[in-house]
Amino acid sequence: MADRTITLRLDGTDGPPPDRTYAIHVGRGTLAETGKVLAATGCQRAVVLADAAVVTPHATAVMTSLTQAGLATDLLTVPSGEASKSLTEAGRLWEALAQLGIDRQTSLVAVGGGVIGDLGGFLAAGFARGIPCWQVPTTLVAQVDSAIGGKTGINLAAGKNLVGAFWQPQGVIADIDTLATLPTREFTSGLAEVVKYGMILDAEFFAWLEANTAAIVAREPAAIEHLVQRSAELKAFVVERDERELTGLRACLNYGHTFAHAFETATGYGTLLHGEAVSLGMVAAAQLAATLGRITAETVTRQHTLLEHLGLPVTTNTLAAVADDTLLAIMGRDKKTEHGQLRFVLPDCIGHVELVEGIDPAAVTAAIVGVRST
Amino acid sequence: MADRTITLRLDGTDGPPPDRTYAIHVGRGTLAETGKVLAATGCQRAVVLADAAVVTPHATAVMTSLTQAGLATDLLTVPSGEASKSLTEAGRLWEALAQLGIDRQTSLVAVGGGVIGDLGGFLAAGFARGIPCWQVPTTLVAQVDSAIGGKTGINLAAGKNLVGAFWQPQGVIADIDTLATLPTREFTSGLAEVVKYGMILDAEFFAWLEANTAAIVAREPAAIEHLVQRSAELKAFVVERDERELTGLRACLNYGHTFAHAFETATGYGTLLHGEAVSLGMVAAAQLAATLGRITAETVTRQHTLLEHLGLPVTTNTLAAVADDTLLAIMGRDKKTEHGQLRFVLPDCIGHVELVEGIDPAAVTAAIVGVRST
Repeated sequence: MADRTITLRLDGTDGPPPDRTYAIHVGRGTLAETGKVLAATGCQRAVVLADAAVVTPHATAVMTSLTQAGLATDLLTVPSGEASKSLTEAGRLWEALAQLGIDRQTSLVAVGGGVIGDLGGFLAAGFARGIPCWQVPTTLVAQVDSAIGGKTGINLAAGKNLVGAFWQPQGVIADIDTLATLPTREFTSGLAEVVKYGMILDAEFFAWLEANTAAIVAREPAAIEHLVQRSAELKAFVVERDERELTGLRACLNYGHTFAHAFETATGYGTLLHGEAVSLGMVAAAQLAATLGRITAETVTRQHTLLEHLGLPVTTNTLAAVADDTLLAIMGRDKKTEHGQLRFVLPDCIGHVELVEGIDPAAVTAAIVGVRST
Repeated sequence: MADRTITLRLDGTDGPPPDRTYAIHVGRGTLAETGKVLAATGCQRAVVLADAAVVTPHATAVMTSLTQAGLATDLLTVPSGEASKSLTEAGRLWEALAQLGIDRQTSLVAVGGGVIGDLGGFLAAGFARGIPCWQVPTTLVAQVDSAIGGKTGINLAAGKNLVGAFWQPQGVIADIDTLATLPTREFTSGLAEVVKYGMILDAEFFAWLEANTAAIVAREPAAIEHLVQRSAELKAFVVERDERELTGLRACLNYGHTFAHAFETATGYGTLLHGEAVSLGMVAAAQLAATLGRITAETVTRQHTLLEHLGLPVTTNTLAAVADDTLLAIMGRDKKTEHGQLRFVLPDCIGHVELVEGIDPAAVTAAIVGVRST
């Protein structure tokens, strides 16, 4: 398998087996190796959960690989889109898993984007109080972010990801060949999280992104492979050190996300893609940081320019009918708030962020002005 | 507080804080101490989840205690009965928690029986990927069993407790005064798990139960206090050594339960109380063990007699319309099966059980004959 394996090391925190370390395989053609990877762990039975839109070719490739490796394999499909991250859909699929007669040794294999990964992980965490889960991300945002680190969840009417579980996968298999056929809007959306890694952790990577925008937008395999690998490494670095968001380190991954979740909730899930909301959220967060005197106007501009060059939105008309108070109210009940106080992850330079508490709502509102267009 | 505190020691398996050890307070009048106990942990806000039938007096007593200790307190109620352990009810309550604007520092306090404890723990495990949960059991079965050990869950159409999470409480507060007003059928039902502890772990406790049936049935406080304390100790002993049912030790708690879950599922949730099903399940399991030559007829009789003297059912007419094949099919998809094989926890004497694999379905069917009455 032409891949580079990143190892995410975690302690034996859920009882034996003592080691919850797992591998993140990033490469070309890795989809066809899924069966071999699972069989090597002793897995004999798998249920593939797939986005109905990518059954052909991705889920089919995984099913073929699993069957060739001797695993009993079933397929469950889910309609495309954020609406599938619902309790209703989870209930339907849990009943389906029960009807298949699976047991605690059966692996759930989630093939698709962030929705499938989050939903599949949540299903695995809850079924029989936990069955093994494998993440096979086929979108950019899933490969660089959501498939790694064990955060799973579904949406409520009251907000995104308000219900979920920490449930680490047995492994992650990311085939960058699946990115070649992604719709442009979806591919571009995934780049928001990549820019985020540069902003929060790695100035050198940020500069590499600035220098390689053309190759990235053209999806040149060498550039994409580096981009996915480095992003996965950075995500693994954070998760290893703060699996459950307790030390504050993992919170740095929420850069831009408090704004983003409010934008997504206020406009209705699906109006903005998650990455588009994150891009707008980072624009607002950088503006907020500059207002508070934490970063220079030049830093704001560098981020703004990189996002634009990658094709990401830096302004939006989707908030035209949304009042500032509505956005503030949503941010006030974000699950990352503590005792109702507004707090944001803000940069103090490219490559470093801090969690800032007790921010004035007026400053937050002012930071949103710049992302509103008519 | 006139209680005896049992300490359940668990490793720091979910990251810091490094110690997930918690206290189980068993005594008289402990309900009124809930606020003091929570405040001592730094908790400032609590949402009480209560069975609508016990809001007065139990949940009210807890609310008063919390308020007096200075905690901001809200109340959510749930209709009585097993039907509330549903995904629909969980969804309604998650939305309600979101509307209350609670954060990850808010504690959920589950006041009621097994249904409330299982549902409340599941809600706490899932909301914002986990908030603190306190168990305040007010029924016998909850005090001696379900409130201790972190198993939470809801039912699917396909089976009982098929979806859930391991989510340890911050503490358990068991007030035996709440047992004085329990309906006889419900109190008696709780004794099934108590007999189980004697059968699986403690011959001396089993003999004490045999010698004290009159005091137990009369609910004499001294007898009930000993019974709840010893049961809680035995449950804690097992959970400490096998939190997630991985070493096989915790599986011993399933004595009688594979049969019981099949009886409950086949007759429709609520026809039999859980403890009644467990009593019948232990009768069948003992018969199965005798058929396999693992225990003597005398041991079967001792268990049978104790169950009868405590008022528990040893035969039932609720299975009249249920075919053996239906029961076998349900047992085959029980979440404790492995690769589809039938396995049972069976005694080899009073005070010791073993997990026995690959049991002949014909022997299982034969063991059920004795519990069927017309």
